[in-house]
Amino acid sequence: ALSSPLLAQAAPPESARLRDAALTDDLAWEITEGLTTEIGPRKAGSDAEARARDWAVAKLKALGFANVRVETFEVPYWERGDASAEIVAPFPQPLTLAALGNSGGTGPKGLKAELVGFDSLAALEAADPASIKGKIVFVTHRMAAAQDGSHYGPVGQIRRIGPSIASQKGAAAILIRSIGTDEHRNPHTGSQDWKDGAAPIPALALANPDADQLERVLKRGQPVTIALRVTAKMAGKRTSGNVIAEVPGRDPSLPIVLVGGHLDSWDQGTGAIDDAAGVAITTAAAKRIMDAGQPLRTIRVVWFGSEEIGLFGGVDYREKHKEEKHHFLAESDFGADRIWRFQTSVADAALPAMKPIAAALAPLGIVQGGKNGDASGSDISEIQKLGIPVLALSQDGTRYFDLHHTPDDTLDKVDPAQLRQNVAAWTAMLAVAANDSTDYGPVPPRK
Amino acid sequence: ALSSPLLAQAAPPESARLRDAALTDDLAWEITEGLTTEIGPRKAGSDAEARARDWAVAKLKALGFANVRVETFEVPYWERGDASAEIVAPFPQPLTLAALGNSGGTGPKGLKAELVGFDSLAALEAADPASIKGKIVFVTHRMAAAQDGSHYGPVGQIRRIGPSIASQKGAAAILIRSIGTDEHRNPHTGSQDWKDGAAPIPALALANPDADQLERVLKRGQPVTIALRVTAKMAGKRTSGNVIAEVPGRDPSLPIVLVGGHLDSWDQGTGAIDDAAGVAITTAAAKRIMDAGQPLRTIRVVWFGSEEIGLFGGVDYREKHKEEKHHFLAESDFGADRIWRFQTSVADAALPAMKPIAAALAPLGIVQGGKNGDASGSDISEIQKLGIPVLALSQDGTRYFDLHHTPDDTLDKVDPAQLRQNVAAWTAMLAVAANDSTDYGPVPPRK
Ligand SMILES: [Zn+2]
Ligand SMILES: [Zn+2]
Ligand SMILES: [Zn+2]
Ligand SMILES: [Zn+2]
Repeated sequence: ALSSPLLAQAAPPESARLRDAALTDDLAWEITEGLTTEIGPRKAGSDAEARARDWAVAKLKALGFANVRVETFEVPYWERGDASAEIVAPFPQPLTLAALGNSGGTGPKGLKAELVGFDSLAALEAADPASIKGKIVFVTHRMAAAQDGSHYGPVGQIRRIGPSIASQKGAAAILIRSIGTDEHRNPHTGSQDWKDGAAPIPALALANPDADQLERVLKRGQPVTIALRVTAKMAGKRTSGNVIAEVPGRDPSLPIVLVGGHLDSWDQGTGAIDDAAGVAITTAAAKRIMDAGQPLRTIRVVWFGSEEIGLFGGVDYREKHKEEKHHFLAESDFGADRIWRFQTSVADAALPAMKPIAAALAPLGIVQGGKNGDASGSDISEIQKLGIPVLALSQDGTRYFDLHHTPDDTLDKVDPAQLRQNVAAWTAMLAVAANDSTDYGPVPPRK
Repeated sequence: ALSSPLLAQAAPPESARLRDAALTDDLAWEITEGLTTEIGPRKAGSDAEARARDWAVAKLKALGFANVRVETFEVPYWERGDASAEIVAPFPQPLTLAALGNSGGTGPKGLKAELVGFDSLAALEAADPASIKGKIVFVTHRMAAAQDGSHYGPVGQIRRIGPSIASQKGAAAILIRSIGTDEHRNPHTGSQDWKDGAAPIPALALANPDADQLERVLKRGQPVTIALRVTAKMAGKRTSGNVIAEVPGRDPSLPIVLVGGHLDSWDQGTGAIDDAAGVAITTAAAKRIMDAGQPLRTIRVVWFGSEEIGLFGGVDYREKHKEEKHHFLAESDFGADRIWRFQTSVADAALPAMKPIAAALAPLGIVQGGKNGDASGSDISEIQKLGIPVLALSQDGTRYFDLHHTPDDTLDKVDPAQLRQNVAAWTAMLAVAANDSTDYGPVPPRK
């Protein structure tokens, strides 16, 4: 006979019923399809992001959510412009690349300079500025795929701080190998900030096959000259915003549940896996709870704005809602492949209260794992600074970084069956946790 | 015990030895890597194609081939220029596409027109010109993958004749779903000619995810307006050429063996699978025969120029060599995945002479198949018009049309192990057939 501490704890019958019904969900697909089709790319601060907010308000109202509103804020606006590059010598040919967020430009005439290659961020950090000054830096380090996406943290540092280091050492520009695990001519964009007063320089990501090519060309041992034309630039302030909707709880005095994802996307794909799916999954689950009868606690759904350029939506929410009590936060921002893990950041005293949630999730092939205290998210990491518990449902990220921040992040990459498993998991979790009167905290404020 | 008519026929021992030795081949990889790295894209008639001819001559001479030379010819030159498109209404967003060969342009201001969609070439053919005049035609029909690539013939007709039909019915432009089997934002370019005096109009292929998107947008039922800017244009004549090299046979009076592939490529990838691999495989096999001692018959290796824009290399070769006697022709132009089939276009009386070739190929997992008379190729189809037998080694094309004519046709898509199986098969075939004094003809001239 089967026996384990987990199975010994039965899921509340209502959560099991709602979970299984959610495996036929069509709403998450409808939201993902609608947002990616009727809006498409939704760059932070763009007109498209504004249209997406209108779309979201109309959709959330039509679904019957309460208190649907937009909370706006200002963001710095970066224009991508055009970018092109070619090897001038020794082997003339074009390269496929994309500017990174906040990249500087070359001016209309472009620039031409010798290439200097580094196989890691550490090698760039150790380099003598004299070997870099006036040159185009190339940092090539392949990111490996992992179910938990754990390579994105360390390898992604090349994108996040490589441009500043190159600038500070006097580089004319920097090209990095895409922070991505595919082999397609689809460069991976993403945000980076100029640290410690580093002057903006052109900062771009090469598609992986182009990084392979540059490595082969450099290995021939001849000087390599690159020509670059980049018209990216900062362009003032624009309005962004969070779209907020609620399922009112039976006891408005209790701390609320916050779930969501981000509404904005990078501009080259249609932001299907990052993160239309996330707002769709969390909204579909909240709608299922709403339709099943009023939950004990209010569930607030937030479609965050301007996540991609630096968690602006999370920061704005934190500042505007810091006096409000939150039961826990949960975010979906890692695609739409199946959820394999349930992770927590709750008080030790609340760990027994996690058991019925884990029991409700187990039939979907989800295990409780990771270290209590490690559960987080992107926008909610800012809100965690207030000291609020977090529950996390980890999606399988094995192919996430094939698509992440590329033109290839399109609807066809969302698997409807796995999307439904996501909705079922979120529904099960909310069915238990939004009806739980016990506290999941206190937890220390995230640093 | 194993017993079959095929196994009953033993491969000549020397061919088996050479075949097995070729499974360690590095030359095909070296040529594929060198051509795609040191030249990169090699568009028909371009400076890059000229550099590729120089590269080929130097490489073939260095390998010890005899009579290395270039036969030049003129080709019409088409400039790709830039192409961009967006949905203006009802859902503003950019589209990813690429101009088809010989596409017309829009002028610098671009054009804006309503979209009219067709789900097949037949639907376009049946359409009332009044429903098309002044509009942008969209033909969407998904190509399916097949081991023998057999969908490319019929579905590829959308690319080959769709633009002419749209033009003749008064369309302002035509967008087709890429003739390709992938789901990446990589549009598939390719050649098309303006038939029966059809006036050039902008003719472009949408990446498959973009064609999916336009289908979804059209299904909403509102009028769809597209803006298009295309600077493609015809730009006079340029020089192209075939690079030819030989392994001289012991008996120069005997008809020669011709093997090869094409040197040119489309301009958006580096032409690794189409067709650096083809010239590499055939050259590596010929080199192995040369190094094993002089074959009975001369083997001529041809790296054809300007295949992609209309088999110009094949036509030029046919016209310049029509008086020469050829034993058979064989071409590699379907990637570098493993060979699974041996096919023939020989006289019925020569079918017994095919048995030792089939026997030499069988241990590589290759079976003789298809109908005798169906073996052909792209450039060699023109030379077959002289009435010359053809032997064909069919590569597995299941993923070929994921990559064909896209930016994604890059070196990383070539699997070294399968590339070696190709070289082994070609070596085995040449070891038998270039040492066979019997005739494989007569065959009727191809129509
Ligand atoms: Zn995201
Ligand atoms: Zn993102
Ligand atoms: Zn080809
Ligand atoms: Zn081709």
